[in-house]
Amino acid sequence: MFSKVLVANRGEIAVRIIRSLKELGIQSVAIYSTADKESLHVQLADEAVCVGTARPQDSYLNMQNILAAAVGTGAQAIHPGFGFLSENSRFVEMCEACGLTFIGPKSQTIDLMGNKANARLQMQKSNVPVIPGSEGFLPDATAAELVAERVGYPVLLKAAAGGGGKGIRRVNDASQITQAFEEAQQEAQNAFGDNRMYLEKIMENVKHIEVQVFRDAKGHTVYFPERDCSVQRSKQKMIEESPCALISPDQRQELGEIAVRATQAIDYLNTGTIEFLMDQDHNFYFMEMNTRIQVEHTVTEMVTGIDLVKAQVRVAAGEDLPFVQEDIQLHGHAIECRINAEDPAKGFMPSVGDVKYLYFPVGNLGMRIDSDLYAGVKISPFYDSMVAKVIALGHDRHEAVEKVKRLLEEMVIMGITTNQSFYHDILNDDGFISGEVTTDYLEKIFLPKWKGIEDATV
Amino acid sequence: MFSKVLVANRGEIAVRIIRSLKELGIQSVAIYSTADKESLHVQLADEAVCVGTARPQDSYLNMQNILAAAVGTGAQAIHPGFGFLSENSRFVEMCEACGLTFIGPKSQTIDLMGNKANARLQMQKSNVPVIPGSEGFLPDATAAELVAERVGYPVLLKAAAGGGGKGIRRVNDASQITQAFEEAQQEAQNAFGDNRMYLEKIMENVKHIEVQVFRDAKGHTVYFPERDCSVQRSKQKMIEESPCALISPDQRQELGEIAVRATQAIDYLNTGTIEFLMDQDHNFYFMEMNTRIQVEHTVTEMVTGIDLVKAQVRVAAGEDLPFVQEDIQLHGHAIECRINAEDPAKGFMPSVGDVKYLYFPVGNLGMRIDSDLYAGVKISPFYDSMVAKVIALGHDRHEAVEKVKRLLEEMVIMGITTNQSFYHDILNDDGFISGEVTTDYLEKIFLPKWKGIEDATV
Repeated sequence: MFSKVLVANRGEIAVRIIRSLKELGIQSVAIYSTADKESLHVQLADEAVCVGTARPQDSYLNMQNILAAAVGTGAQAIHPGFGFLSENSRFVEMCEACGLTFIGPKSQTIDLMGNKANARLQMQKSNVPVIPGSEGFLPDATAAELVAERVGYPVLLKAAAGGGGKGIRRVNDASQITQAFEEAQQEAQNAFGDNRMYLEKIMENVKHIEVQVFRDAKGHTVYFPERDCSVQRSKQKMIEESPCALISPDQRQELGEIAVRATQAIDYLNTGTIEFLMDQDHNFYFMEMNTRIQVEHTVTEMVTGIDLVKAQVRVAAGEDLPFVQEDIQLHGHAIECRINAEDPAKGFMPSVGDVKYLYFPVGNLGMRIDSDLYAGVKISPFYDSMVAKVIALGHDRHEAVEKVKRLLEEMVIMGITTNQSFYHDILNDDGFISGEVTTDYLEKIFLPKWKGIEDATV
Repeated sequence: MFSKVLVANRGEIAVRIIRSLKELGIQSVAIYSTADKESLHVQLADEAVCVGTARPQDSYLNMQNILAAAVGTGAQAIHPGFGFLSENSRFVEMCEACGLTFIGPKSQTIDLMGNKANARLQMQKSNVPVIPGSEGFLPDATAAELVAERVGYPVLLKAAAGGGGKGIRRVNDASQITQAFEEAQQEAQNAFGDNRMYLEKIMENVKHIEVQVFRDAKGHTVYFPERDCSVQRSKQKMIEESPCALISPDQRQELGEIAVRATQAIDYLNTGTIEFLMDQDHNFYFMEMNTRIQVEHTVTEMVTGIDLVKAQVRVAAGEDLPFVQEDIQLHGHAIECRINAEDPAKGFMPSVGDVKYLYFPVGNLGMRIDSDLYAGVKISPFYDSMVAKVIALGHDRHEAVEKVKRLLEEMVIMGITTNQSFYHDILNDDGFISGEVTTDYLEKIFLPKWKGIEDATV
């Protein structure tokens, strides 16, 4: 086992990883930008190294400085968390070159799954259903039009190397497709130096369902009960739950076995998550694979009692998976709400400032708040606005909802504005309570209604 | 189900009960003394009624005012918590007279178990082994001496109606017994108006092991995995765990079945805990029964995933027990440390003052802090010094210890002195780590060693 691990991240996920390292008896090294020197992850780690200025490119994305910090402190491994360098195959290769273990999959797997068109092809090879669309890359707009006619409009043209919304165009009918294809292709060339395109049908009235998998170097592979992450705003997940209220035990197993098959086929290492869309008839369509720990891994931990970050560290150190499929039992229902420093009443504008008062109401059974907040911390404008994950475990979905509502009602964060009270309205909404909301529910149904109420109140 | 419940308590247990009521959708009524008007339980409850001045006799023990508050607010039931009126059979009768449901056992059961000599006799009738000693009451010192000769010195002479250390004498040999008996008897007469005495052998090198039981009005009865509460100072529990590291699954079941038999025999209602001493050969001896929820119920909740306070409310409302024995599965190992506002370096002298800064490090899996603290609250000298219960659940005892150590290391309470850092030394002590400590370990072995270190440091 490692004796020292560097955590190449910040915020709540860095705090969360450092805490698991402590419990494993492993020394932790934090990295930080000059904007983060008072941050909780810096205070909790055994050592901390400043890797650059506030701009992510200068610090949390600064591969050379991060590797120098790891080598200089004698760390044997790097945990990348999520975001930043967590899905950067070049960084994985550089870790290897420095004799450091990257806690995650191999660089080739990250590359394979990072190219979304190749990932689609790979999944089709494993008989995993994918979103209707092109097979492989589209040579030109005519080819795109042929596929679009086959699968039906509206469709999404996407850059294979895509990310961050670049090289993507929605196309509603045939008249738009040529121009859209050419624009998107040019944008992709400019953004990624790679103009390869593919196409997917736009699925409507679907749920976002995802399955986390875990595989060790010996090939032992397991799946976890699915998560439902359908409550989204601007493609950002806001509420995640496990299990999905609409999925039966049989379907859970079936979906899990599909995920395991796909994981085996790509010789995956460590944990990852396969994201699906689920239509009204409970058909699943592969969307993409995240080759890292995710924000919402917490709900899976709550319903299974398994610490996924500890398992990541063990598997990266060459140990066997510390559990087999039968150990992964679903106990109850868990819900997470992402607390962001932003103002829902002002179009979710980010909020910055000093946290002047903080109260985390964490008594009683099944409550968890993962956060890097403390009274006195400064929220800077440089990074993601997520400041806390409020998580509750209940015997059933109703109890989990009641518990997370109580947490949100009692929690006090003063000095910055957050979306805390916005959740109150979602959690009390009949649509949400039904468990049936689809990925467009929040923006199409809930928000217009909510804005009406807000406007009337003001 | 009740629509409104009054919580006849204060501090963390009042907060804990109010939180479960909220999750059940039941309105809560807090009571408070003038010293507690800013307390968290008052802030969290839906309504709050001042029942008197700071002195417990004037407020939290003021039965008439509490009943008036319940009737006046339209509460249908009273949850007594622990301490205060929780084992007062007269209060239970008064509740009934006012048409209020007392959330706990019947008054007769409280009386039966409250008289410690009668409780011994009752347990013997159910073939529950008791601490060697007298059968029933002792008519005089001569009778006491005969029993003492039979069971062996040292012995404890105890008032049957006893409590709070009154009417108790340790007797090391026959030469002391006559005088001790007469003194204790007189003291008991003065304190309780009841001079009945009994005698028990003083057991040495024993563990404090207790079994929580639950029974509904239809007689469905279950037991929970045992708790080990052997880390004690001045007869006060400091650390509680579940399960006991030394007890096998077979023995757990055997002990549980003994507890269930005893519970059935007294037609018990709601939850209670049977406390045993366990000797080096794993023989169990009944000590007493607590006819209420206990401080340490939390560790049982953590290892079973069952909210015991919610179950108390349901059973009091006439519902069936919401679980059967097979539902009570042991998942992992939980440890609780009681955080008191007291100074270990000054002989555990109570500390009072304003909490100026507070940080509860509750991220990651299996962490829980039950507390009535918040930044700004005033700790008054009038009540029990316990201000927080820090609880962790791990897969095994080792992980639970590492987790609770991390919680204690990260938790910050400024403005008052607590025993927080004292736990660091206990949790790192080889004796504690072995899991074998007996009830006298802390005072006989650990504290003298610890004082030596403290003195050397000063």
